[in-house]
Amino acid sequence: MGRRTARTRIVRLTAAGGSRQREETLAAEEPLEIRIGDPAVPGSAHVPFATTMRTPGEDFDLVAGFLVSEGVVAAAEHLASLRFCAGEDDDGRQTFNVVEAQLGPGAVPPSAGQHRHVAGNSSCGICGTASLDAVDKTARCPLPAAHAARDDGGARLSAETLLALPERMREHQRLFSKTGGVHAAALFDLDGQLLCLREDVGRHNAVDKVIGWALREGRLPAHHTVLQVSARASFELAQKARMAGIPILAAVSAPSSLAVALGERVGLTIAGFSRGSTVNLYTHPERIESRSEDVSTGAE
Amino acid sequence: MGRRTARTRIVRLTAAGGSRQREETLAAEEPLEIRIGDPAVPGSAHVPFATTMRTPGEDFDLVAGFLVSEGVVAAAEHLASLRFCAGEDDDGRQTFNVVEAQLGPGAVPPSAGQHRHVAGNSSCGICGTASLDAVDKTARCPLPAAHAARDDGGARLSAETLLALPERMREHQRLFSKTGGVHAAALFDLDGQLLCLREDVGRHNAVDKVIGWALREGRLPAHHTVLQVSARASFELAQKARMAGIPILAAVSAPSSLAVALGERVGLTIAGFSRGSTVNLYTHPERIESRSEDVSTGAE
Repeated sequence: MGRRTARTRIVRLTAAGGSRQREETLAAEEPLEIRIGDPAVPGSAHVPFATTMRTPGEDFDLVAGFLVSEGVVAAAEHLASLRFCAGEDDDGRQTFNVVEAQLGPGAVPPSAGQHRHVAGNSSCGICGTASLDAVDKTARCPLPAAHAARDDGGARLSAETLLALPERMREHQRLFSKTGGVHAAALFDLDGQLLCLREDVGRHNAVDKVIGWALREGRLPAHHTVLQVSARASFELAQKARMAGIPILAAVSAPSSLAVALGERVGLTIAGFSRGSTVNLYTHPERIESRSEDVSTGAE
Repeated sequence: MGRRTARTRIVRLTAAGGSRQREETLAAEEPLEIRIGDPAVPGSAHVPFATTMRTPGEDFDLVAGFLVSEGVVAAAEHLASLRFCAGEDDDGRQTFNVVEAQLGPGAVPPSAGQHRHVAGNSSCGICGTASLDAVDKTARCPLPAAHAARDDGGARLSAETLLALPERMREHQRLFSKTGGVHAAALFDLDGQLLCLREDVGRHNAVDKVIGWALREGRLPAHHTVLQVSARASFELAQKARMAGIPILAAVSAPSSLAVALGERVGLTIAGFSRGSTVNLYTHPERIESRSEDVSTGAE
C-alpha cells in the first residue's frame, strides 16, 4: 500500500522578514489506474478505464465507488473481484497504483467511448440538461420519494443533526489534521451516527471511497443516510450521491447551479453553507425536520 | 454566452430552530465540450477532445489554456481559430457549450488515446514518477533557472509581495463575493501587479483560463510571473504552471506530495499556506527574496 503522507523540508517566511527551515507533512498524491475485466470473457486482458490522482489508501473502496458513480455497478455482487495489478516500476517495486476490477453478473460494462467527466459528448447541443438526462438514464433505481414519511420508507433528518455533521466529521479528519491539505466525505445514518469517513486530495475521490465502502458492505442503495462533504457541492458530487441512492447531500460550502438543478430533478436534498449555526436548503427541504415549524412552508 | 450565476430560492435554518425562505445566487456550472480540428485537413470534422464542467465565461481562454496544459499548443500562433459550435439544444437555442479549436502550424495534435487526467496510462508500473516524466517530455521549453539572477533572466519576487498576493486577489474575486462558491486563479507580474484573474467552479478551469489569456496575449512562456491560486496546489495545477512557463506557483492552502516532487524536478517554486503573515516555501526558495537574509540558507 502506498503511503498517505510524505515529509518534506520547507522554508517558512514571516511578514516581519524572518525565515526558518522546518519539516512539514504533505498529503500524498499518486495516480491510480482503474482497469476493468470483461465478465463475458473470463481471464481476458483488463482494459484501462480511467486514471485519477488520489491519496493512496482504501483504493478498493475508491475503485468500487468510482464504478458506482459511472453506473457500472450498483451492488456488491456486480463486482467479482478487485486486486492490485502485479506491475512494477523501473526499480522493480510494486507500485500499488493499478487496480483491476473484474465485473460480475449484473454489472453494466462501460461503453468504448465512456470516459470520466464526459457526461454527454454525443453531438452539438451539449448542455446541462443533457448531463441531467444522462444521470437519469444511468441510475438504476429512484431515490425514496422526498415527501414520503419515515414510516413509509422516507428519509427524515432533524435540523439539529444536520447542523452538527460538519463538526462531527471534522473530529475524525486525521489526515487533514496532519496536513491541512485534504478533503473529506462522511456517510452518517439519519440519527447522525458516523458510518464511514474518507479523506483524499481529490474531493470526488473522498466521495467515491465512501460510496465504494457502502457498496462493499452491501449497503447500496443507501436510502437512509446523509453524505457530508468538506467543500462545495458540484454537479459531479450530486451525481455521485444520487447514483448511490443517498437522498441527502450536505456541503460546508456552496452548491453549483447544475448540482441544484440535478437535486431538484431527481429528488435529492441538497444542503449548503452548513456552518454549525445556520444551514441553507437548496432542494427538497421537506426531508429536514425543524423543531419550530415545517420548513417547506416557512414564510420569508 | 452562458450566464455565470443563477438565482434560486432556498430555506435557511438556524440552530435556534428558525427557518425562512430567501433568494440566493449560485455560481453557474455547465459542461463545455472541446473539439479539435486537424490542421493537416482544413475543414475536416472537429473531433471531441475533452469535456469539462465549468462556469460559463472566458470560454476561449479556458480552451486555449487547457490545450497549453495538455501540450497541444505553446504560443498564440499554434491556435488558428476558436469558435462556438453552431449547435443547438432541443429548444433550438445556441448552447455556447461547445468550442471548436482549429490548430495552426507548430501545434502538436493530441494522440488518439490522450485523455484528460490520464498522465501515463501505458502499462503496469504507473506511478508518480511516470507522471513527472510525462510532464518533462511534453513541456516545450525549460523554466528559467531557479538560481539565475534577475539580470540574467531569472525570476525574483520579494517575500513582501508574495505575502500580499492572496489579499490582492481576493479584492477582485467578484463572483466569489456574490456566490461564495468559486475558485480563483490570478497571474501577477514580479512587482505584484495583477495581470489577469479568472474564477470558476473548478480550480483547474480557473488556472486554464488564466493561462489561455496569457497565450492569447502572446505572453507565453510567462517566465516573469507568479500564479496565485485560491486553494491547494495539486500535481495538476503545478503541471499547468510548468507547461505555461510560470516559475512560481503560490497557493492559499497545502501542496500535495506529487506537486512538490514536480516542482523540485522541473525548477518550479511552490509556495503554500500563504496567509498574509506567513508563507511556506516547498521548492526552490531561492527565487523569493526575504528582507533579512537569504532564505535558502536560513537556519532552523
